[in-house]
Amino acid sequence: MLVQLKQAVWEANLNLPKYGLVTFTWGNVSGIDRELGLVVIKPSGVPYERLRVEDLVVVDLDGNIVEGKLKPSSDTATHLVLYKAFPDIGGIVHTHSPWATSWAQAGIGIPALGTTHADYFYGEVPCTRPMTEAEIQGAYELETGNVIVETFKDRDPNQMPGVLVHCHAPFNWGKDPHEAVHNAVVLEEVAKIAHRTCSLQAGVPAMNQTLLDRHFLRKHGVNAYYGQK
Amino acid sequence: MLVQLKQAVWEANLNLPKYGLVTFTWGNVSGIDRELGLVVIKPSGVPYERLRVEDLVVVDLDGNIVEGKLKPSSDTATHLVLYKAFPDIGGIVHTHSPWATSWAQAGIGIPALGTTHADYFYGEVPCTRPMTEAEIQGAYELETGNVIVETFKDRDPNQMPGVLVHCHAPFNWGKDPHEAVHNAVVLEEVAKIAHRTCSLQAGVPAMNQTLLDRHFLRKHGVNAYYGQK
Amino acid sequence: MLVQLKQAVWEANLNLPKYGLVTFTWGNVSGIDRELGLVVIKPSGVPYERLRVEDLVVVDLDGNIVEGKLKPSSDTATHLVLYKAFPDIGGIVHTHSPWATSWAQAGIGIPALGTTHADYFYGEVPCTRPMTEAEIQGAYELETGNVIVETFKDRDPNQMPGVLVHCHAPFNWGKDPHEAVHNAVVLEEVAKIAHRTCSLQAGVPAMNQTLLDRHFLRKHGVNAYYGQK
Amino acid sequence: MLVQLKQAVWEANLNLPKYGLVTFTWGNVSGIDRELGLVVIKPSGVPYERLRVEDLVVVDLDGNIVEGKLKPSSDTATHLVLYKAFPDIGGIVHTHSPWATSWAQAGIGIPALGTTHADYFYGEVPCTRPMTEAEIQGAYELETGNVIVETFKDRDPNQMPGVLVHCHAPFNWGKDPHEAVHNAVVLEEVAKIAHRTCSLQAGVPAMNQTLLDRHFLRKHGVNAYYGQK
Repeated sequence: MLVQLKQAVWEANLNLPKYGLVTFTWGNVSGIDRELGLVVIKPSGVPYERLRVEDLVVVDLDGNIVEGKLKPSSDTATHLVLYKAFPDIGGIVHTHSPWATSWAQAGIGIPALGTTHADYFYGEVPCTRPMTEAEIQGAYELETGNVIVETFKDRDPNQMPGVLVHCHAPFNWGKDPHEAVHNAVVLEEVAKIAHRTCSLQAGVPAMNQTLLDRHFLRKHGVNAYYGQK
Repeated sequence: MLVQLKQAVWEANLNLPKYGLVTFTWGNVSGIDRELGLVVIKPSGVPYERLRVEDLVVVDLDGNIVEGKLKPSSDTATHLVLYKAFPDIGGIVHTHSPWATSWAQAGIGIPALGTTHADYFYGEVPCTRPMTEAEIQGAYELETGNVIVETFKDRDPNQMPGVLVHCHAPFNWGKDPHEAVHNAVVLEEVAKIAHRTCSLQAGVPAMNQTLLDRHFLRKHGVNAYYGQK
Repeated sequence: MLVQLKQAVWEANLNLPKYGLVTFTWGNVSGIDRELGLVVIKPSGVPYERLRVEDLVVVDLDGNIVEGKLKPSSDTATHLVLYKAFPDIGGIVHTHSPWATSWAQAGIGIPALGTTHADYFYGEVPCTRPMTEAEIQGAYELETGNVIVETFKDRDPNQMPGVLVHCHAPFNWGKDPHEAVHNAVVLEEVAKIAHRTCSLQAGVPAMNQTLLDRHFLRKHGVNAYYGQK
Repeated sequence: MLVQLKQAVWEANLNLPKYGLVTFTWGNVSGIDRELGLVVIKPSGVPYERLRVEDLVVVDLDGNIVEGKLKPSSDTATHLVLYKAFPDIGGIVHTHSPWATSWAQAGIGIPALGTTHADYFYGEVPCTRPMTEAEIQGAYELETGNVIVETFKDRDPNQMPGVLVHCHAPFNWGKDPHEAVHNAVVLEEVAKIAHRTCSLQAGVPAMNQTLLDRHFLRKHGVNAYYGQK
């Protein structure tokens, strides 16, 4: 069952240490089969170098374990909220990648300062509001998903494939697990360049909207002309 | 004698260059056998690439060499003070890892700014007070241990497995040598992210206490639910 | 046709990931055969690890594809403008290398602060003016080339083999594709050191003109005495 | 002739890329045979990956080439001035290592901020004064040596094995070429940590003199007790 999806989720998880996004086990990737309504996700606390395809856990959208001997990632509830709220996404990744996390800890969204950003994120990468005491003490991981969804009330997750969770770290997504990790790599790079830009020039303004449009749309719009398609 | 402990201490020492925590010989790991009251520690000034298990030195808690042909680490007296004062710890590591050391040189504890920190350190990682002239000119390495213990007068070393020594560098500990090094890796990562957070946003406040509790306790409390246990 | 040039362009493209200048496909190198008036350039969006010599695209100076089954780099029009305006250059490279890009995003040229800079760039590495709405919405990549050429109205591209495009990233060039990439590596290193210098000392002045002359000319002048020539 | 010294200088040069101190050919190491009054030095502009022992150049203390088919490093005159002025040193290295160079470009010495520094450098690592127009336009490399020697008028080069040349980069030395490179690695690490300390805490004071004494002397004094000697 779900042989291809498991393979994709396994490879995407192994890409986290390959791209330098994780220390120890600080990250997890999942993927969804929309027809079956089943999610494949990394087990909790298993080191990447020991992770086997058969260790992956299959859960339904209510979080019930459908297959697998290990406990799923402690962040599973957050993933499930996002899959339910964002119907077009097929893969989700959570890491504590250090540059993006420094913005999350400062509680500041990453402003669109240049075309590297504009090629992937259509505007400022938002940071969620602080969670309330009740949210933290309640179903914390589920509420983490809810506060992300609230942040996207007036945003399109297909044009903004990532978010910073306040005092925590980033989540990214994409059409499949591979693209989600690709976007996480880009977010970390964009966070790094923006950090250095701001330390050179305090109060640097966001980039020109027309330039943002041009770059985002040449890669992602109907008339995209980047790449071989 | 102490075959398993020696193997563990040897492997933990080799993990220091593997994780990028040391330049040349700037670090040392020890482990203790609580029943025998014996400590296994790295010899002084021996490069990691030449370190063999049989080079490790065994000392008792008064610092007498029980086994080994080489001189123990010049920081041995500091390790022994900590083993005597903190009865639950089984391994200690000292490095000059550069991000943590930059905080120690500034004389500032590392504030708890996000969940990466909260997953391991239950509050601000403290920095010791400056040592007095008498302490520096006296039994310096022993006094370094004493000033760490003084810093933990009202702290629980099991909930705060590390410290910054003022104008010097970090010490970390854990239930065994491997966990001590694990905590040293985390401290360096946390020090890096906090540094970048502070340079983005001067005066950023410490994280919400409820969020700190939630993350520390989901990994370390009685009802911990992270990982496979 | 163009066997040697294709080999050189292919190797120069592979040097981009080797020197850490690119993430994913964020960069491209071209080379020109001045006699034939033909340019060899990387195809758009092809990962470096899959790039084969036969994937390279040959275009004429008007951008017509002369050979190759793939679409050329989306930045091809920029390269062509530069080849036409700067008659001595034989290779061009564009990357989003992160240190140089942070200066481009801040909209600031990289000041000549020391001899590392002076050995390659004869003065401040300039940043272009912001592009107008009309330029961005029009033939954007061609206009990017035009704004670079405008920036060099009173500069000699042979003494300043690089530029920052405002809110975008650097372009570099040289007498051939290999030298262009060499200069891109240097620009990234110079951008890094200058960034750190400015964060140590805000408002640090540009270096002494005599020292700048001495270093640039000992490597590049008529009486150059660096190296084995 | 000088077989052992040539081997040592060759290995020390290869350690520059190994330790990440150089980009391309931006560095050179030499060693001296005090009895013969001969210096072995890297040839100018030869890449490290192609450098063979037989490429090294032997010069006397007046700079005459005694052996070797290639031109010696363009910085040879600086090395020779230092060998003549500092009679105890046996090896010299010059690099543009980026952290140390950022201090040199700012024109600021590296303050002694912690024990990592104190273990090797007995006080602030000095930065030379700016060179005069006449010095730059005259025998520039020789004058670079002279301005270093002037900086050490009231300093002991055996207790301060390195210097920053204003708007340029560091020079280091030691009892042999290997130790010179060792000190260059330490200088780069110390420059990095000090930079980060200063960005955390502007105006952080130099460390306590007693602590500086303790650490320098436990490694280098008559009663040194670090290591296995």
